[in-house]
Amino acid sequence: MLLHKSTWQEIEGYLGRSRTIVVPIGSNEQHGPTGLLGTDWMCPEIIANEAQKSADILIAPTFNIGMAQHHLGFGGTISLRPSTFMLAIGDWCRSLGAHGFTKLYFLNGHGGNHSTIEAAFSELYAEASFAGRPRGFSCKVRNWWELRGVMSLVSRQFPSGHGSHATPSEIAITQWAYPDAIKSANYAPRIATSGPIREATDFRARYADGRMGSDPGLATPEKGGELVAAAVQALIAEVQAFDAEPASPYPG
Amino acid sequence: MLLHKSTWQEIEGYLGRSRTIVVPIGSNEQHGPTGLLGTDWMCPEIIANEAQKSADILIAPTFNIGMAQHHLGFGGTISLRPSTFMLAIGDWCRSLGAHGFTKLYFLNGHGGNHSTIEAAFSELYAEASFAGRPRGFSCKVRNWWELRGVMSLVSRQFPSGHGSHATPSEIAITQWAYPDAIKSANYAPRIATSGPIREATDFRARYADGRMGSDPGLATPEKGGELVAAAVQALIAEVQAFDAEPASPYPG
Amino acid sequence: MLLHKSTWQEIEGYLGRSRTIVVPIGSNEQHGPTGLLGTDWMCPEIIANEAQKSADILIAPTFNIGMAQHHLGFGGTISLRPSTFMLAIGDWCRSLGAHGFTKLYFLNGHGGNHSTIEAAFSELYAEASFAGRPRGFSCKVRNWWELRGVMSLVSRQFPSGHGSHATPSEIAITQWAYPDAIKSANYAPRIATSGPIREATDFRARYADGRMGSDPGLATPEKGGELVAAAVQALIAEVQAFDAEPASPYPG
Amino acid sequence: MLLHKSTWQEIEGYLGRSRTIVVPIGSNEQHGPTGLLGTDWMCPEIIANEAQKSADILIAPTFNIGMAQHHLGFGGTISLRPSTFMLAIGDWCRSLGAHGFTKLYFLNGHGGNHSTIEAAFSELYAEASFAGRPRGFSCKVRNWWELRGVMSLVSRQFPSGHGSHATPSEIAITQWAYPDAIKSANYAPRIATSGPIREATDFRARYADGRMGSDPGLATPEKGGELVAAAVQALIAEVQAFDAEPASPYPG
Amino acid sequence: MLLHKSTWQEIEGYLGRSRTIVVPIGSNEQHGPTGLLGTDWMCPEIIANEAQKSADILIAPTFNIGMAQHHLGFGGTISLRPSTFMLAIGDWCRSLGAHGFTKLYFLNGHGGNHSTIEAAFSELYAEASFAGRPRGFSCKVRNWWELRGVMSLVSRQFPSGHGSHATPSEIAITQWAYPDAIKSANYAPRIATSGPIREATDFRARYADGRMGSDPGLATPEKGGELVAAAVQALIAEVQAFDAEPASPYPG
Amino acid sequence: MLLHKSTWQEIEGYLGRSRTIVVPIGSNEQHGPTGLLGTDWMCPEIIANEAQKSADILIAPTFNIGMAQHHLGFGGTISLRPSTFMLAIGDWCRSLGAHGFTKLYFLNGHGGNHSTIEAAFSELYAEASFAGRPRGFSCKVRNWWELRGVMSLVSRQFPSGHGSHATPSEIAITQWAYPDAIKSANYAPRIATSGPIREATDFRARYADGRMGSDPGLATPEKGGELVAAAVQALIAEVQAFDAEPASPYPG
Repeated sequence: MLLHKSTWQEIEGYLGRSRTIVVPIGSNEQHGPTGLLGTDWMCPEIIANEAQKSADILIAPTFNIGMAQHHLGFGGTISLRPSTFMLAIGDWCRSLGAHGFTKLYFLNGHGGNHSTIEAAFSELYAEASFAGRPRGFSCKVRNWWELRGVMSLVSRQFPSGHGSHATPSEIAITQWAYPDAIKSANYAPRIATSGPIREATDFRARYADGRMGSDPGLATPEKGGELVAAAVQALIAEVQAFDAEPASPYPG
Repeated sequence: MLLHKSTWQEIEGYLGRSRTIVVPIGSNEQHGPTGLLGTDWMCPEIIANEAQKSADILIAPTFNIGMAQHHLGFGGTISLRPSTFMLAIGDWCRSLGAHGFTKLYFLNGHGGNHSTIEAAFSELYAEASFAGRPRGFSCKVRNWWELRGVMSLVSRQFPSGHGSHATPSEIAITQWAYPDAIKSANYAPRIATSGPIREATDFRARYADGRMGSDPGLATPEKGGELVAAAVQALIAEVQAFDAEPASPYPG
Repeated sequence: MLLHKSTWQEIEGYLGRSRTIVVPIGSNEQHGPTGLLGTDWMCPEIIANEAQKSADILIAPTFNIGMAQHHLGFGGTISLRPSTFMLAIGDWCRSLGAHGFTKLYFLNGHGGNHSTIEAAFSELYAEASFAGRPRGFSCKVRNWWELRGVMSLVSRQFPSGHGSHATPSEIAITQWAYPDAIKSANYAPRIATSGPIREATDFRARYADGRMGSDPGLATPEKGGELVAAAVQALIAEVQAFDAEPASPYPG
Repeated sequence: MLLHKSTWQEIEGYLGRSRTIVVPIGSNEQHGPTGLLGTDWMCPEIIANEAQKSADILIAPTFNIGMAQHHLGFGGTISLRPSTFMLAIGDWCRSLGAHGFTKLYFLNGHGGNHSTIEAAFSELYAEASFAGRPRGFSCKVRNWWELRGVMSLVSRQFPSGHGSHATPSEIAITQWAYPDAIKSANYAPRIATSGPIREATDFRARYADGRMGSDPGLATPEKGGELVAAAVQALIAEVQAFDAEPASPYPG
Repeated sequence: MLLHKSTWQEIEGYLGRSRTIVVPIGSNEQHGPTGLLGTDWMCPEIIANEAQKSADILIAPTFNIGMAQHHLGFGGTISLRPSTFMLAIGDWCRSLGAHGFTKLYFLNGHGGNHSTIEAAFSELYAEASFAGRPRGFSCKVRNWWELRGVMSLVSRQFPSGHGSHATPSEIAITQWAYPDAIKSANYAPRIATSGPIREATDFRARYADGRMGSDPGLATPEKGGELVAAAVQALIAEVQAFDAEPASPYPG
Repeated sequence: MLLHKSTWQEIEGYLGRSRTIVVPIGSNEQHGPTGLLGTDWMCPEIIANEAQKSADILIAPTFNIGMAQHHLGFGGTISLRPSTFMLAIGDWCRSLGAHGFTKLYFLNGHGGNHSTIEAAFSELYAEASFAGRPRGFSCKVRNWWELRGVMSLVSRQFPSGHGSHATPSEIAITQWAYPDAIKSANYAPRIATSGPIREATDFRARYADGRMGSDPGLATPEKGGELVAAAVQALIAEVQAFDAEPASPYPG
């Protein structure tokens, strides 16, 4: 069930069945010579949308702009500052909490988002902790490639050249979902270098075409389809377990 | 051209042709008994995506969560506070400005966003004004229903019962684009009441099913298609005029 | 009744009669070759002070610095950033709300303030909406020239050359109230050009003497007196109607 | 010279003669049974306006709302939070600095403002210090009663019962300036108690009619006139000395 | 009793005896040619730690970074902006208040902190005042040299050359506590100049070796020991009086 | 070399040898029935202070309050909100960067700090990235237990009962450094339960005495000494490698 294609009354109906919602979250940032700028928000969106076709889980609109400051040296990247990102995540969560959602599950598509998302959750909890009251909802973030079974599939599909940015696995997923938008390019070296992530000027100087450790040419739509299937299965199981988790043990 | 389905190199290529970008912006909020929660971000996204099929204009990912605090009493609404919204708009614009975009055109789908978007633009300009330097880019916001020719078509399509929230025109557009998500409901009175907009508790007490002044049952996919066609034509003309506007006259 | 010339006990007495207060709000910014820097805060102050002489309405001190970033290229302009302006409006309103005022009416003298004032109101409402509680007060903003009857008088007084900044109507009002501060200057062209409003550097390059579309030399103290009289009458009626508006319909 | 009764061209002319400006700053807060709510911003405004009649000094509009959180338990008090106050002072100063003012002198009427004004100045300096650049302007705050000669006059006028809030000296000044707004009331004890200043609930419980240590009935318009005369003389001397202070010794 | 060398259960036990806590607070900033960068946080830490050896008072960890923007031109200075400092003080106080501490006593070692600490307290009180509720705790700040009896001892020890920054008294205290870190240097003039405090660039240009009005060579460990003894005695008395102060008089 | 026991001239001398500084950072929070509230800031302080005895590395004062919102249900915990923590880290780093430090190494003692510290670094980098300029310094954070060789030693010392909060390893380190502050307590079960970390109310309900998965009674001062020795060796190597890392490859 897609929240944005539902009426408010359908959502209030859903809340009678479950208090859990899945928010696809990512980033809009350069993904090397062949990756789409939307890769990191498209991947969790694709997986979540597939998942809701075979299970009664609710998917929120996609949070499509994240923390991508280091990619700002490449055209088309759009980033929030971490502090802005935290405020926005906070308002999303407070909105959902106001409707009675108690389990907020973020399916993340960008590793660079992870720390800031965790900090945003802590900020939300802190608001309650300083007031000495329950928060009313629990937050969880999961990178899609860390869903059970996905990383082992990735290792089989791409025994070398996977890397950490503009990876063939994420590009394969977008190829599977958007075959009209498959790109090709000549790039060298075949496997990009790796190193630290700092400010945008430093990043562009280190990683000339935007890749980090990857050979995105290994991506195929078929591999993307396999990855989506694995991720969907694991996502449904994890969301259902989160949904089933008993309420907080606090006394009143 | 969709930014998120492009590579960074394609965007840098586009910047050689034009410095203008269109950002669909809206809100995810209740739209009465038959309107989709995503109506306000879907409408500008639909129009913008159609427009780029027939003109060389660049469309950013959709800014899908806006200022909908008054709708928080209805399940599924997600809102940013105005202050958060302004910070996020600011970071989007600074990101785009960093790549060399000089004309940032926001196609807006939610009237309640308008003041805050304007305030966000002023905040961006103020940053430059206090520093005594040029901003480097110009911002413009346009509600899709204020595009030339659209409101007169709306008046012909819906001589009564259009109202101001959960209107048949916006619902018609989503029906045209997403025929699988057409909803029906019994509601009364046929035309909802109107009045002021304040906090969410007040809003829900005044407007029991979420509509303001509208009879959304008048919507049809056909009318939606007509509206999109009119809006697309006007959007292209307006964006091209903005693109052609000479640079700021400041000395240097 | 002027709040600042009253004791706290007189205000608590007033609150037994009415819960409505009028806040004159404007800006301190360049007003062309003959307009006073204080024009935009003086006009609502003048009108409000006149109004309280003939009706039992309470006037707050004047909020004299607003959102004038675009005028910072001209000496003497003092501006808040929109974000600061919103915080300050918020604290004014929370202060007044804490005393039991439930209707906060802002009489505005600067068009450039309008969006940010609306955004500030939304921020105040959002605070309540996220908490699921009533706000406790309602906010309204009215530009003095939009008071019933004023704009039609303006059109009769200044059939051409009114423009949108450093207008003869606002200057006429300050001439009527402060005849000792009537200025004259040679300027050309007689009617200034119009165009967009962006950052301060752009503004000064476009509008060399600060006027936008106006011929302020048309102002006379007599016309100012007529404008004040019309505005006072409409203000009293509008404030009384706001005061009489029934409380919010929310249940508890 | 009053900034708000000048044109921008007159201000740019003044800047050719002097780079110093005086900003009256105060608070709008309860002042006991007979004091006006505006007392703390009226006093510096009165003194500054008198001073500019006999010396070529420039007076800004009055910053009329300050840090009065402790008085919020009494009707009519309007306060900024310290953080808001600092942001607003910052924007005033940056605006003035942008025009070339290098000496910003705040004449303060409310003791409770003092620490926050100093903190605001430090915030402005810190902005430059972190960037390793000159600030471009210097800030100074002076409570009017600390002007040379004033406190000794106060001691002669009010050997007992002066106190620290709703003092006869400040009330005398407003009586001198606004004889139409002289109030009387029965209050007891004749001299109010003193003690700490904390949150508003605590304050109202400690100081039932709002006074702290004072007997405001000792005020007369004549004493007010004497105080204004003393303050004006000292203000002019101090402002001229500030204006004459050589520029910062930093190398470049 | 040192909080950080206690378990949480020991603290909850202490709260059964007293609701008062002492927070040493200072700054890490240049202290002239012979003073340690940590001088301003070490002094209150030393005094507080001594005091808890002879009285049942609880000492928090040291708040070691304060408002030292003006010293940023000298290597090793670490400063918070005033706005950051206020937020951090706020979180410390809210944390302590959440545990039931009702008297928060800050022993300050840096004059430049004082205004910002006061502003931070006002921000905390304002939070309660706007909400119309009690704050729940009271805050007090005391510079160690203003403890009863200390300044008179200082005057006897250093009849000339004490000055206001890098003073022999504060350096004597660190010499007494850390005899391994006594520094010597040639400097001239023997007594440094005095003047205003503004941004860092200005400060370094005015005060070449960092001293203001002082001759730190007058410091000896013995004088430091005398100062600590005097301060400890006064601190204990003042903290016990604060602890004994009756609760706020507010009704409920 | 301890920064706070140095003069500013000694620091400027050090900067001629190295541009790297180590900041011990932790938290002040409950550590179960026998752990000190200061454990998490004492551990990195102890290790860093030992390290500078045998290598020429510079240690900053300890950043002793971190992100411990979940522990606020236990007496003595002091926490910053993540947003405050980020601002404070930002000001520390900007201060150090202003002096010419280019490698800022944070030795962290609290796992709960990690995400927020990373987010703070991203905020600092983003400031530069949005401006299109180099940041000027690089930041690195390392949890002391993740230093090379430490976790394997921990596994040998505590094959079971190590857990994740109030662990015997961290308590052992404080026992070694502060033998006067070794605590004992009866607690049950011997090994505490584990689970999620959310707001403080939830945390205290789940973890009655504050431990998570640990048996702190396994700690001994001897094991602490071994841990410190291992950590010191690895810290020195890692800091020297960071110091030796070549400057950013960006062109100018």
